[in-house]
Amino acid sequence: MGRFDSVIIRYGGEIGIKADWTRRAYERRLLANIRKSLKHHGVPCEGIIRKYGRFYLKTSSAEEAASAVSRVFGVSSVSAALETTSKLEDIVANSLELAGSGLKRGDRFAVRCRRTGEQAYSSVDVCREVGQRILDGFPELNLKVNLKCPDFELGVEVRDDRAFLYSDIVKGVGGMPLGTQPKLAGLLSGGLDSAVACWLVMKRGCPVVPIYFDNTPFTDERTTQRALDTAKVLFNWATGFSTRVYVVPHGANLEEFRRKCPRRLVCLLCKRMMYRIAERIADMEHAEGIVTGEAIGEQASQTLRNLRVLDSAAEKYPVHRPLLGFDKAETEQIARKIGTYDVAIRGAKGCSAVSSSPRTAAKLGEVEQAEKKLNIEALIEKSLNSLKKISL
Amino acid sequence: MGRFDSVIIRYGGEIGIKADWTRRAYERRLLANIRKSLKHHGVPCEGIIRKYGRFYLKTSSAEEAASAVSRVFGVSSVSAALETTSKLEDIVANSLELAGSGLKRGDRFAVRCRRTGEQAYSSVDVCREVGQRILDGFPELNLKVNLKCPDFELGVEVRDDRAFLYSDIVKGVGGMPLGTQPKLAGLLSGGLDSAVACWLVMKRGCPVVPIYFDNTPFTDERTTQRALDTAKVLFNWATGFSTRVYVVPHGANLEEFRRKCPRRLVCLLCKRMMYRIAERIADMEHAEGIVTGEAIGEQASQTLRNLRVLDSAAEKYPVHRPLLGFDKAETEQIARKIGTYDVAIRGAKGCSAVSSSPRTAAKLGEVEQAEKKLNIEALIEKSLNSLKKISL
Repeated sequence: MGRFDSVIIRYGGEIGIKADWTRRAYERRLLANIRKSLKHHGVPCEGIIRKYGRFYLKTSSAEEAASAVSRVFGVSSVSAALETTSKLEDIVANSLELAGSGLKRGDRFAVRCRRTGEQAYSSVDVCREVGQRILDGFPELNLKVNLKCPDFELGVEVRDDRAFLYSDIVKGVGGMPLGTQPKLAGLLSGGLDSAVACWLVMKRGCPVVPIYFDNTPFTDERTTQRALDTAKVLFNWATGFSTRVYVVPHGANLEEFRRKCPRRLVCLLCKRMMYRIAERIADMEHAEGIVTGEAIGEQASQTLRNLRVLDSAAEKYPVHRPLLGFDKAETEQIARKIGTYDVAIRGAKGCSAVSSSPRTAAKLGEVEQAEKKLNIEALIEKSLNSLKKISL
Repeated sequence: MGRFDSVIIRYGGEIGIKADWTRRAYERRLLANIRKSLKHHGVPCEGIIRKYGRFYLKTSSAEEAASAVSRVFGVSSVSAALETTSKLEDIVANSLELAGSGLKRGDRFAVRCRRTGEQAYSSVDVCREVGQRILDGFPELNLKVNLKCPDFELGVEVRDDRAFLYSDIVKGVGGMPLGTQPKLAGLLSGGLDSAVACWLVMKRGCPVVPIYFDNTPFTDERTTQRALDTAKVLFNWATGFSTRVYVVPHGANLEEFRRKCPRRLVCLLCKRMMYRIAERIADMEHAEGIVTGEAIGEQASQTLRNLRVLDSAAEKYPVHRPLLGFDKAETEQIARKIGTYDVAIRGAKGCSAVSSSPRTAAKLGEVEQAEKKLNIEALIEKSLNSLKKISL
């Protein structure tokens, strides 16, 4: 299919139903993100035009472009395409060529046409004419028309004086263009859940500032490296956006908790501290909330009662938990799709500060009581003073 | 397959990895929920035994039972099965019968065996013997063994002195047994999103107390009925649990907001009020949080900035938003699966109190300023005094 010279980029119904002003802003953002992605992947782009809820991209590397663009948030599907004039004879001639290189003996095929602008023919005329000419043109292939369940589909999009022919539709990643929402501070452990949670809010338009809490000596260097590598994979989905990661030393905090507080509460105290420090970083980064990978009941600290205890530690920002309703298997499936799975399952030292019998239904009162033995504010300040900002 | 007399019930890996005490509690709850579901569907059950991470159900209506049980939260898959002794000749004879009623000419087939207990044969012995006897027994069908991609699979589970034979695995709904987590108060509008959000937390074990805010005169009776019908569908997933719905008169509150506050803030004020009233109902119901159908950026009130403004209205409980990272199309897909879609898309009056140009990035300050013109506490009390509890 070396003859493709264009890509049809379709974007979501959710963008289409926005109010005019919002829709235009979203389209501009989407277009900018598409351009950045093409540049990042070294795919040449000779121009992009917007027409009737589509982008039409001109490029000498249509298949590579289609593949890159399909991974831009907000894109619902793409097709490598061949551009012609909207003259019916041009459409027919080029359709025959496309069909010739794609059809196999005995195939059932369909021609679909969508049309905008003023032409002397209707969409049905196009389907009928192209379909008949394909039947006539390849008698040796013993083809049959089948609109319901074809082996080969030829699509024709007529736009005013131009037409775009394609034979394949690649599903896009969906969602909203990255950057149409403000930033979120993401708690990123390097495990499966947190990366998927960050990716899901990115998919809905929010750039994520990952924060990794370094629990050394309760974890080790491999754990840190795994988190940074996970962040790298996430940033592959955010071409052109900041690649800054915060690494917060958290081991000393854990040591305090273990020394002064009931061991069964350590995980909750740890997480409450993470929320508090994340709020400070959200302030610095002008983020509008925190995102975490918690799923109801997945771990002891994630029972509904414990989530309530955790939530109360975030005073200024909402804690967003996109995985709340996910089964582990569902999270794993997304992790595989987005490329974080292989990194997340890599060997790394699990946190050894975890209690063997953590509280599964803590009361806020007992946790606050335990925290009274700590100088929370001083611990936060100390952590913030020694945090590292890394650009990946 | 009328000869099936049992159902193999498999439950999730997530339950299996819980600590002993928790796992046993979850299994007990799952078993109780399965029994309630069978009773509700009028499916006879002559006994259930638990063995090695499975439930084996004895019943004269195996297919009906399998279908009902596959919809119980926590069940990962089910198979209608035929029970025999674990004597190899019994397994072979019954396998031949099962195979005979399921195999078609030219089929590729596979035999799989899992075994626990002390037997004189290995799992491989079972596969080899049964496979060979099937080949020998149906020469006219021209069968082939194909372990990788079979048309027909015969499963054998040997458990001590019993064996269970099956030829089909039905995927279960997954999740955690309902009731293993505390209750949540669910804001249920009758539209697509809120029902799916409630279902997702139910899937993770939380019973939901639906709360419908009746915006009459800005909506009408059809809107209320649609919400109640949606709740009914949700309760089909919660056999044996409470079917209580709260209906809160909310129109008078909206009138106040429209009279005294900027029209562009009405949706935010409305939702903040819903959160506050839901917190009171959560108190009455001993729920541990609120669940809503908000998805980032889906509506003007659901931008990240506005979610932050909303969040601050809930003072006592977390607001859980399982749809945060979902595209509308993904939510619709789940709605179809769980049966709420057809109800949700039914004609109903959309709320006419909505502004044509709502604030998409409100500041908490301006909203709090607007609320100063209202007697929030009095409005809450008035709503609570006239709320209706309905058992569906």
